[in-house]
Amino acid sequence: MTKTEAAEQVRAARIRSGLTWAEIATRVDKPLVWTTAALLGQHPVPGDTAATVGELLGLDEAVVEALQLQPTRTPDPAAAQDPTVYRFHEALAVYGPALKELIHEEFGDGIMSAINFKVDVARRADPDGDRVVVTFDGKFLDYRW
Amino acid sequence: MTKTEAAEQVRAARIRSGLTWAEIATRVDKPLVWTTAALLGQHPVPGDTAATVGELLGLDEAVVEALQLQPTRTPDPAAAQDPTVYRFHEALAVYGPALKELIHEEFGDGIMSAINFKVDVARRADPDGDRVVVTFDGKFLDYRW
Amino acid sequence: MTKTEAAEQVRAARIRSGLTWAEIATRVDKPLVWTTAALLGQHPVPGDTAATVGELLGLDEAVVEALQLQPTRTPDPAAAQDPTVYRFHEALAVYGPALKELIHEEFGDGIMSAINFKVDVARRADPDGDRVVVTFDGKFLDYRW
Amino acid sequence: MTKTEAAEQVRAARIRSGLTWAEIATRVDKPLVWTTAALLGQHPVPGDTAATVGELLGLDEAVVEALQLQPTRTPDPAAAQDPTVYRFHEALAVYGPALKELIHEEFGDGIMSAINFKVDVARRADPDGDRVVVTFDGKFLDYRW
Amino acid sequence: MTKTEAAEQVRAARIRSGLTWAEIATRVDKPLVWTTAALLGQHPVPGDTAATVGELLGLDEAVVEALQLQPTRTPDPAAAQDPTVYRFHEALAVYGPALKELIHEEFGDGIMSAINFKVDVARRADPDGDRVVVTFDGKFLDYRW
Amino acid sequence: MTKTEAAEQVRAARIRSGLTWAEIATRVDKPLVWTTAALLGQHPVPGDTAATVGELLGLDEAVVEALQLQPTRTPDPAAAQDPTVYRFHEALAVYGPALKELIHEEFGDGIMSAINFKVDVARRADPDGDRVVVTFDGKFLDYRW
Amino acid sequence: MTKTEAAEQVRAARIRSGLTWAEIATRVDKPLVWTTAALLGQHPVPGDTAATVGELLGLDEAVVEALQLQPTRTPDPAAAQDPTVYRFHEALAVYGPALKELIHEEFGDGIMSAINFKVDVARRADPDGDRVVVTFDGKFLDYRW
Amino acid sequence: MTKTEAAEQVRAARIRSGLTWAEIATRVDKPLVWTTAALLGQHPVPGDTAATVGELLGLDEAVVEALQLQPTRTPDPAAAQDPTVYRFHEALAVYGPALKELIHEEFGDGIMSAINFKVDVARRADPDGDRVVVTFDGKFLDYRW
Amino acid sequence: MTKTEAAEQVRAARIRSGLTWAEIATRVDKPLVWTTAALLGQHPVPGDTAATVGELLGLDEAVVEALQLQPTRTPDPAAAQDPTVYRFHEALAVYGPALKELIHEEFGDGIMSAINFKVDVARRADPDGDRVVVTFDGKFLDYRW
Amino acid sequence: MTKTEAAEQVRAARIRSGLTWAEIATRVDKPLVWTTAALLGQHPVPGDTAATVGELLGLDEAVVEALQLQPTRTPDPAAAQDPTVYRFHEALAVYGPALKELIHEEFGDGIMSAINFKVDVARRADPDGDRVVVTFDGKFLDYRW
Repeated sequence: MTKTEAAEQVRAARIRSGLTWAEIATRVDKPLVWTTAALLGQHPVPGDTAATVGELLGLDEAVVEALQLQPTRTPDPAAAQDPTVYRFHEALAVYGPALKELIHEEFGDGIMSAINFKVDVARRADPDGDRVVVTFDGKFLDYRW
Repeated sequence: MTKTEAAEQVRAARIRSGLTWAEIATRVDKPLVWTTAALLGQHPVPGDTAATVGELLGLDEAVVEALQLQPTRTPDPAAAQDPTVYRFHEALAVYGPALKELIHEEFGDGIMSAINFKVDVARRADPDGDRVVVTFDGKFLDYRW
Repeated sequence: MTKTEAAEQVRAARIRSGLTWAEIATRVDKPLVWTTAALLGQHPVPGDTAATVGELLGLDEAVVEALQLQPTRTPDPAAAQDPTVYRFHEALAVYGPALKELIHEEFGDGIMSAINFKVDVARRADPDGDRVVVTFDGKFLDYRW
Repeated sequence: MTKTEAAEQVRAARIRSGLTWAEIATRVDKPLVWTTAALLGQHPVPGDTAATVGELLGLDEAVVEALQLQPTRTPDPAAAQDPTVYRFHEALAVYGPALKELIHEEFGDGIMSAINFKVDVARRADPDGDRVVVTFDGKFLDYRW
Repeated sequence: MTKTEAAEQVRAARIRSGLTWAEIATRVDKPLVWTTAALLGQHPVPGDTAATVGELLGLDEAVVEALQLQPTRTPDPAAAQDPTVYRFHEALAVYGPALKELIHEEFGDGIMSAINFKVDVARRADPDGDRVVVTFDGKFLDYRW
Repeated sequence: MTKTEAAEQVRAARIRSGLTWAEIATRVDKPLVWTTAALLGQHPVPGDTAATVGELLGLDEAVVEALQLQPTRTPDPAAAQDPTVYRFHEALAVYGPALKELIHEEFGDGIMSAINFKVDVARRADPDGDRVVVTFDGKFLDYRW
Repeated sequence: MTKTEAAEQVRAARIRSGLTWAEIATRVDKPLVWTTAALLGQHPVPGDTAATVGELLGLDEAVVEALQLQPTRTPDPAAAQDPTVYRFHEALAVYGPALKELIHEEFGDGIMSAINFKVDVARRADPDGDRVVVTFDGKFLDYRW
Repeated sequence: MTKTEAAEQVRAARIRSGLTWAEIATRVDKPLVWTTAALLGQHPVPGDTAATVGELLGLDEAVVEALQLQPTRTPDPAAAQDPTVYRFHEALAVYGPALKELIHEEFGDGIMSAINFKVDVARRADPDGDRVVVTFDGKFLDYRW
Repeated sequence: MTKTEAAEQVRAARIRSGLTWAEIATRVDKPLVWTTAALLGQHPVPGDTAATVGELLGLDEAVVEALQLQPTRTPDPAAAQDPTVYRFHEALAVYGPALKELIHEEFGDGIMSAINFKVDVARRADPDGDRVVVTFDGKFLDYRW
Repeated sequence: MTKTEAAEQVRAARIRSGLTWAEIATRVDKPLVWTTAALLGQHPVPGDTAATVGELLGLDEAVVEALQLQPTRTPDPAAAQDPTVYRFHEALAVYGPALKELIHEEFGDGIMSAINFKVDVARRADPDGDRVVVTFDGKFLDYRW
């Protein structure tokens, strides 16, 4: 069973179970986005975490095993055009060069790591309509020969 | 003069002036990322702000006028592969589907607006190496017929 | 069952049933284009609406469930070249820059929302041949930091 | 002088003149979107109309001549990703297959012409925020051997 | 059954039957290219024609039904590189701009319709080697607002 | 001077001269489409023909020389999306596989040559609207080892 | 059975049989590259040749029939990057423009036919390491209107 | 001066000089295809050869120097669609997999080198029309760890 | 069974077996990267090596046979965007032109062979964090006609 | 002056100066590949290093200033197909998945950094022909939330 097939089974089982991603993350005591991404196949899931999820969602053993495998993280260009995801790419198209300028101004030549990295999503109440707040938080790595 | 040409003049004049983007933003009393993006051509700059920047950086009147024009916001695919910018796209490739799941779980069917939207970049001290923290903050828009 | 598979079942069942899309929309008391798009997988269908459609078209329970799922809205580049659909894209290639100019002239810097949005299609009688009239109607969103 | 170069001159002269596209359209007594598109190079402009525009905007004779040339209508893929234009393409990605179904249901096998065609854009007041209303209106052409 | 699957069954059944496309076209009393294209899935086939073809070729009822469906006409980019098909595309690359000039010279601004359109293929004897003669015949449509 | 630059000069000079492509073809006693294509850079023009055209249109000697050069025939993908040209490509997408079947049925395995080839465009009067008739005429070449 | 499926069966059966492509070509008395290409699906195989190959390799009747079908010759872009095949494309990238110059110098405006064409591959002993010698041999076709 | 600019100057000067590529190759005593490719910028030309060519064609010293530079050999995808060049790519699409099979059959796992490599083009008289014969000749390199 | 299917079976069997790639390489007495690449389908595996691996991992005979086949080495563009693999491509984007300059400076015009080639990966301890050291080692091949 | 323009000036000046990249690296006391890449525009060059290079190569002050700017590191897809550079990409296509397996086996889930990274190129004498040895050396970064 591939990790993609396992992710499909997780998606279906989660809907059947009525559990939210947030409830699953609480049960396995892991960060919310990490948990969701990992169960969708983007991270190897530790054995005990996979076992707990397997029980929660009533997954087959093959799914529990597949969750633990090392992923190959290949992007899905079609999914990047889903409107909910596309807005992030559009924001990067508009603000990416400005972010690059400001990272170099503050830190010098280098990058925000996407490996030593975490991301969170939250709701912020606002009288003009609540807001989605997504925080990218990565270690700065300078070009160092 | 196109906005792209104006942006090149702004880049060069800023380096000659020795001013940081942060100092320019303070002088025009606008948010940091907005100011940087606008001067790089991604937003029409109000007349008085453009005039202030023109004085600060010693820009020609043609540049000051170009800054005020309505932009066409076309992405630059080559720039998206610069390592500092690419890490954001890679993070979206890995975590985008999870963000989509969680936005729908929290808000229902809809998107984070990239128009009623702001973004900030900050430094967070960390004993293991300081971190780049980028916050996307957009109004939730639900699919509403 | 994926939403794509469900859409295929809806298409086939509708033809077998002899019902038009317009009749189905009337029965579920929803707008015409919304109903058609939703049954083709582009919107989550509310439970009672899905149940009504299931009865009308004699769909399996798995199809009725799939209709209610949150979609990932990925475009189909091949379908965009079907002549009936392509003419819309060609019209945008020819008139898109003019529409952009006029939206900015009337509303300022911003966009027509494609989320707070509705679309309708109608027939207009014309002695030189009847006409297809398609109306896009979206809330204006201004770039607001 | 190419039509693209002429369009750039028209854009700059219009801003200098302070005239709106709507005012220009009124002066030459042509539809609004047609006038804007034609002056941006998408239609050959009749000689007298071109002359009137030349006077209104103070254009060189070479520009006035270029406006009258037959265009080659080549799309600009980068401009299609400008957010104001992209929302139309996104709407077609989501609703295009439904529009195709409904055109065939109402008219049979065929297309909405993009040649015997007009498009209009209007503002519709709405207490929840004014709306952009764009109407595509094309003659139905049936597949006829 | 999709129209693509039906086309595969038609191709196989035709070879087994020993009938030529020309013989089939004669039997159903339709133009040659139309008949071939329609049986390959590019046009909805009228019910009686589909029934006649079903008898001629011994097709299943499901195939006969699929032939009558409205097609989505999506191009196959790989097939366009088959040498027999590619030569037409190459000829358009070489002569397309000239054809455009001459259509505008003769008819004004507009197009040859590909919908109100027919195409024929014939053999012309020639002492230096027989020739393939393909005729495209479409109604002229002028840009008419 | 490249052949592309020469073609631009020919286009401009022809409009200034008021001559049609048909009149030029008559003067140089060559087929219409060949003449147009050759002057647009797709064929090397014989020296005397180039000289005649140079006189007719008042071209510089450098243009006359460039017309005689051997071309590299590179397609222009953007021009292929001009609506007048695109309809030919769309017709090939719809009818190309049928043409391939019928060429093989009539001639066996092989192609219509695009080199030993001519193409013509004509107007055919029709009470329902005049028609554009384009004829491709190429020698059949069989796969012969 | 498609020709691609038939080719896969031929590949597997050939390895099981222990026969070389050269031995098969000898048995059917056809040129080596033609035989190999034809059995991989690029040429219709004459009935008696197909039958002989079927016996030699123990192929099912369905494979023998599929070998005789007219192919659609669609290139496989992934296979073109296999290093053994890629070197030919690289050589054309480096030497293609020179070959074009020399063909025109020797023959005038035209092409080497890829239809009235044969290709051979041979080993040439060389003290510095044996060499692969591939000969393309096609009829010259001049642009002839 | 880049090697591309130098190549353009060589092309023009050669035509003015009336010399054939074959005559130039004879004068510098180098193989024909090598000479042509090198003067078009695909090989560094030895100093004395470059000087001889410079005298023959009356080239500026800057051109003579540019001919001696190390090239970056980047393919030109548009030029690959010129019909004279395209036929070679088409032949590889049709026969490439067969050539790969036969190289492995004769030599084992490995490639024909495109570096230790030469190519020649010749005319072969044929009563059915003379033929273009192109020979690729490269050292076999086996995969050797 | 294709080599891709065999590779999937090897991956799964290796995880079940608990053996590392390094242990497998030791058992078959082959270099580490060669062994891993070959079992993933990139090299034909000698019969005795394939048999040993089959025993070690409990593979079916069909897998053992597939490992011995000649591969077609087609790249997987999606896998190239996996972050672990992408960093190598990014390094080549940044340093590739410099490597080219230095190879030509040291060796003259030519290439590092990727066929007469080996690659190794090692861990180097470092107080600031251990390092991945990958060595590419290929025979220099000079352009030699 | 852009960094690309500066790089062109460095390339030309270095050839005129007769200095090797290795000699320049020695003079500025920096690693060889770093120096070459930085002077080709891939790294900001420290002020004193830029000044020394400016003197060595006789560069204009504008070039010396451009060398110090922060680069945007955009890949050049055409240059990646130069044979000397392509062999590295080919090696990654063949061995990349194996390197990924072995990095994970040795280090766990993570990547070789391309930022905290150095690369070297060397010549290794070999009786069968000297070899190019390129070493990639990057810090291992584990996925750490």
